[in-house]
Amino acid sequence: MNHKTLKIGLLGAGRIGKVHGNHVARFIPEAELVAVADVDEAAARDLAKKCRVEKVTTDNTQVLRDPEVEAVLICTSTDTHAALIEEAAAAGKHIFCEKPISHDLESIDRALMAVARAGVTLQIGFNRRFDANFRRIRRAVETGEIAEPRLLHITSRDPGPPPIEYIQRSGGIFLDMTIHDFDMARYLMGCEVEEVFAYGAVKVDPAIGEAGDLDTALIVLKFANGAIGTIDNCRQAVYGYDQRVELLGSNGAISAENNYPNTATISDGLTVHRDLPLNFFMERYTESFRVELESFVQAVLHGRAPEVTGLDGRMAVVVGMAARKSVDEGRPVRIDEIG
Amino acid sequence: MNHKTLKIGLLGAGRIGKVHGNHVARFIPEAELVAVADVDEAAARDLAKKCRVEKVTTDNTQVLRDPEVEAVLICTSTDTHAALIEEAAAAGKHIFCEKPISHDLESIDRALMAVARAGVTLQIGFNRRFDANFRRIRRAVETGEIAEPRLLHITSRDPGPPPIEYIQRSGGIFLDMTIHDFDMARYLMGCEVEEVFAYGAVKVDPAIGEAGDLDTALIVLKFANGAIGTIDNCRQAVYGYDQRVELLGSNGAISAENNYPNTATISDGLTVHRDLPLNFFMERYTESFRVELESFVQAVLHGRAPEVTGLDGRMAVVVGMAARKSVDEGRPVRIDEIG
Amino acid sequence: MNHKTLKIGLLGAGRIGKVHGNHVARFIPEAELVAVADVDEAAARDLAKKCRVEKVTTDNTQVLRDPEVEAVLICTSTDTHAALIEEAAAAGKHIFCEKPISHDLESIDRALMAVARAGVTLQIGFNRRFDANFRRIRRAVETGEIAEPRLLHITSRDPGPPPIEYIQRSGGIFLDMTIHDFDMARYLMGCEVEEVFAYGAVKVDPAIGEAGDLDTALIVLKFANGAIGTIDNCRQAVYGYDQRVELLGSNGAISAENNYPNTATISDGLTVHRDLPLNFFMERYTESFRVELESFVQAVLHGRAPEVTGLDGRMAVVVGMAARKSVDEGRPVRIDEIG
Amino acid sequence: MNHKTLKIGLLGAGRIGKVHGNHVARFIPEAELVAVADVDEAAARDLAKKCRVEKVTTDNTQVLRDPEVEAVLICTSTDTHAALIEEAAAAGKHIFCEKPISHDLESIDRALMAVARAGVTLQIGFNRRFDANFRRIRRAVETGEIAEPRLLHITSRDPGPPPIEYIQRSGGIFLDMTIHDFDMARYLMGCEVEEVFAYGAVKVDPAIGEAGDLDTALIVLKFANGAIGTIDNCRQAVYGYDQRVELLGSNGAISAENNYPNTATISDGLTVHRDLPLNFFMERYTESFRVELESFVQAVLHGRAPEVTGLDGRMAVVVGMAARKSVDEGRPVRIDEIG
Repeated sequence: MNHKTLKIGLLGAGRIGKVHGNHVARFIPEAELVAVADVDEAAARDLAKKCRVEKVTTDNTQVLRDPEVEAVLICTSTDTHAALIEEAAAAGKHIFCEKPISHDLESIDRALMAVARAGVTLQIGFNRRFDANFRRIRRAVETGEIAEPRLLHITSRDPGPPPIEYIQRSGGIFLDMTIHDFDMARYLMGCEVEEVFAYGAVKVDPAIGEAGDLDTALIVLKFANGAIGTIDNCRQAVYGYDQRVELLGSNGAISAENNYPNTATISDGLTVHRDLPLNFFMERYTESFRVELESFVQAVLHGRAPEVTGLDGRMAVVVGMAARKSVDEGRPVRIDEIG
Repeated sequence: MNHKTLKIGLLGAGRIGKVHGNHVARFIPEAELVAVADVDEAAARDLAKKCRVEKVTTDNTQVLRDPEVEAVLICTSTDTHAALIEEAAAAGKHIFCEKPISHDLESIDRALMAVARAGVTLQIGFNRRFDANFRRIRRAVETGEIAEPRLLHITSRDPGPPPIEYIQRSGGIFLDMTIHDFDMARYLMGCEVEEVFAYGAVKVDPAIGEAGDLDTALIVLKFANGAIGTIDNCRQAVYGYDQRVELLGSNGAISAENNYPNTATISDGLTVHRDLPLNFFMERYTESFRVELESFVQAVLHGRAPEVTGLDGRMAVVVGMAARKSVDEGRPVRIDEIG
Repeated sequence: MNHKTLKIGLLGAGRIGKVHGNHVARFIPEAELVAVADVDEAAARDLAKKCRVEKVTTDNTQVLRDPEVEAVLICTSTDTHAALIEEAAAAGKHIFCEKPISHDLESIDRALMAVARAGVTLQIGFNRRFDANFRRIRRAVETGEIAEPRLLHITSRDPGPPPIEYIQRSGGIFLDMTIHDFDMARYLMGCEVEEVFAYGAVKVDPAIGEAGDLDTALIVLKFANGAIGTIDNCRQAVYGYDQRVELLGSNGAISAENNYPNTATISDGLTVHRDLPLNFFMERYTESFRVELESFVQAVLHGRAPEVTGLDGRMAVVVGMAARKSVDEGRPVRIDEIG
Repeated sequence: MNHKTLKIGLLGAGRIGKVHGNHVARFIPEAELVAVADVDEAAARDLAKKCRVEKVTTDNTQVLRDPEVEAVLICTSTDTHAALIEEAAAAGKHIFCEKPISHDLESIDRALMAVARAGVTLQIGFNRRFDANFRRIRRAVETGEIAEPRLLHITSRDPGPPPIEYIQRSGGIFLDMTIHDFDMARYLMGCEVEEVFAYGAVKVDPAIGEAGDLDTALIVLKFANGAIGTIDNCRQAVYGYDQRVELLGSNGAISAENNYPNTATISDGLTVHRDLPLNFFMERYTESFRVELESFVQAVLHGRAPEVTGLDGRMAVVVGMAARKSVDEGRPVRIDEIG
């Protein structure tokens, strides 16, 4: 491409849409936010104003048809992702889409097909890949610093459960929460998951169980390289957002701790203590949200493959489905049983 | 009982026998080491001399028939444990026996029956229960400090694999190495394991696989209280002996780090670092070996139940057998399938 | 005030000027950067372009006379600070000025007098007061969390010495480097320093000694509240920028560690290590530079006293002069000996 | 020497005498405790019984004249140390003596002279030199791991002040408490202190001030190698015994943290915390007390110089006197002003 900045349209001005919109408008000199769409007109207007964007609409299609728009950020509700990807691809727009692509494999496959046909760039919003801690672990694997991986552990716990209405439409813990961890596992290992075994439980809130979901889970992963991994999920950790990883390799181990608001340690007559970790994803992953968009913009501008592909988006869903099947059937499930 | 010290005979003057013998002789005022037996006469003599013990023999039975001896420490090879327990019980001696009781459930059951009939005290050598770190975690569960347990993780890695000859007679990784972790899981949770799922791999040394064993394993445990646990085992961690636990409860989490030879941190032009953790069980668990024997002596002298019972010894073997079955059959195995 | 944004002119587009200019332009919605001046025209133009500022000049006075400009950021060389403060105050502009105000007490007093007469706001650039770690310690003092302060230790070491040309014009280690720590000591304690004793040494580079300066120093402070403090300075710490504080109070102690680029710990066959701390003030104090400007803008817009006053700027210089006198005369020096 | 064990007499069966007596009796195979003396006959009898020692007396001289006794441990009150050293030396006994030798330089010099004349071994009880943490730091200096030392910080705080009666006879904070830190400073640096400056305060208990003593102090040391050090003392740290060191060298820094009863970290809804450090010297320095006696026994048996000499004992007192003079006169005091 021979222009200097990438002109971006934002679809969805909700919580995550605001984050991305602000990042584009303020921190990424190579990109320009030129249009904002949201079914909630006030939300769209408000964000557009803060980001000094003139084009505001309640109609995603208007942005998708705007010839000035070169790329779109799909930050709408999950059930609209796949169709918007298809539409955007058909319109020749590059696409950054929040996870998950869809709760339904057929929709995902149609969307990916559309992207492939159109030859546009598609990046999925697995922002944690861009976090400094996890990147450091990935680097340890890539460079051989710890040699051959043997055992991986991902701890991923939320401070508290979302409203039950959210749970009901979430697609279940594996597609809503663990999906980030499935992607993290594949990213860190640099290879595919072959088989999954999962135990699930309802320990936080019986209403979650009544909604047919789990709130506590332990998933074991068998990787193509022979390594074994676990993911530890809970919808509630009273001390806050708990996001850690450790990895044993044949030549060493590496682990990443939580991030904290400060480094102060207080010793009083009772304990030696520090303040709780950064409490939720907006604070904990602020930097990674910015870096993932930079990465997307660079990928488009320089015609490079994105760091998180549509297939990455698909695989995380597939592994999530296998985990659910494992819980339901009480047995390990091979990934190729899913599709 | 109305005497002041417990007179103890030691069966087996090998590595662990020496540790226990020395502890009795030097650190436990309420006990007295009065006899040492080992098939290797030189080993027996050497230890007896250091501990100022007069009675030395190559014949275990001689110690078991000695009317002065009130209790025995069984530190011989595993294949002799069960029979020696039976013989000691028949002779009315109290018994401290190293783990595992046996690789064979029938032998275990006969031994436990003999103990029950004789009404003597039997304590099994799960020394890690007496370690200050793990005791602190157990206390957090018992006192409700973290409320209801949800997810438990035990990391248990050796600095390097034992000789292949040892592996061949070890009973396999689950009965030799993980057995400590199975006991730890039951101890920390304060409830039984109901189901086990395990993945195993040969990542350290192909010769271990050729011997029919595994050197790397991940075991998932479903507990009677609904909590889920994992055990992470590897026969080799290049940085040394890795013995950690973490536990998430409904009101908090608690985790225990490794022990180190010193607390110094060095910052040079490359990294901020500290020396490697204490390297193996003799250094890491020194204190717990002493405390477990004290506990045994107190239990006998005061007629209290031992802190680690024969049933504890049996259950760890049962869980280990379930784990092996799970690997062999590629499915979760209920504990009641074993016996 | 009844306008919505504060219009700001930047004097000095060097290293720190760029930082402040970017912060105003991107992160502080209540402020607007409207003019940039630097004797180096290219530097001024470059920054103005990046921040989308139209007014660019090589003449500070032009900015100071610009009726649109309501406040100025003085980021020029130290020898010009005091005169620019006087000029800005005379022009009725609010002033943010980098530390130190001057190496000369008379100039400082004239500048502060001019500010007082004009009734404008003056804030001095002691950015570390806005760092999350040190703010946490200040909070522990203010809220009585550690009760009455007894002993304070400030560690403040640079990764490496600046060029000898910089040293020669720096005013000496106490006015250039320690000045931040003197301010930190006063800020954390919430009271004045009464007496200073200092040892200095040349350990890093003999050329620094030949320039009449020190590169290693230990300063002891006696505070008005009876507490005692130390500052530990070195122009070179091979492991990077070392910025820590600890404080013992009658009811507890609090200490702040360095900040790191990630939280990963690597265990290999040699050590347990992590990457070096964030290397220098631009990375380490990024956030505090942004927060201090926000604080300045808020102070001006709401007519509040600034968080760092002109007197704070003066006192840090006075304590620095006392420290130098202490080294020169080999005795403790009372602050009221200086003025 | 051609005998295998060193026969030892203990003078003083108080708190520290018990520690040493037990160590000799149980843990040091090359030594044998053969006599115990204490003016309190019950205390002497009690310890002798526990250590299976037959010779018990209330008269130190009886032990000093006992031809079986080859070495004595002087654990009596400070005011008797110097005279007992003289008497022991005259009797040709090797001597381990608790710190300080005396509060009076003349007595010290007479004692050291007597030792020199008699050609016996004298080791002073600076047990902290034998602590694993501080030994690690010493090693970093000796091996050049951090190259040339520049800045040393010793933190040394007690959990709470001793009774006021103890304070009154203690010789003052510098000779009673800081004396350990003065020795530590010399040990770690491997060179002499040349000048001392000290600030002292009464912050813990006014009664300590009324007794003419200080309870809080900050001492600065100038070393012969040009490095600078500080010692931070307080008679009360509510969180317990605080014993840390850090050292900056030209090629890196090394610091030692406190020791803890366990490594567990608890995260609840309020903080991330751990239990308080080991609370006082008996727990914190247990191991070092054992190692120092082993070292003494080895030095005597192999005719080697002791690791802590009589001159070390003298220098710590001299530096302590200089510190007191500095506080009294409000100026830095050169060591050669003392003697």
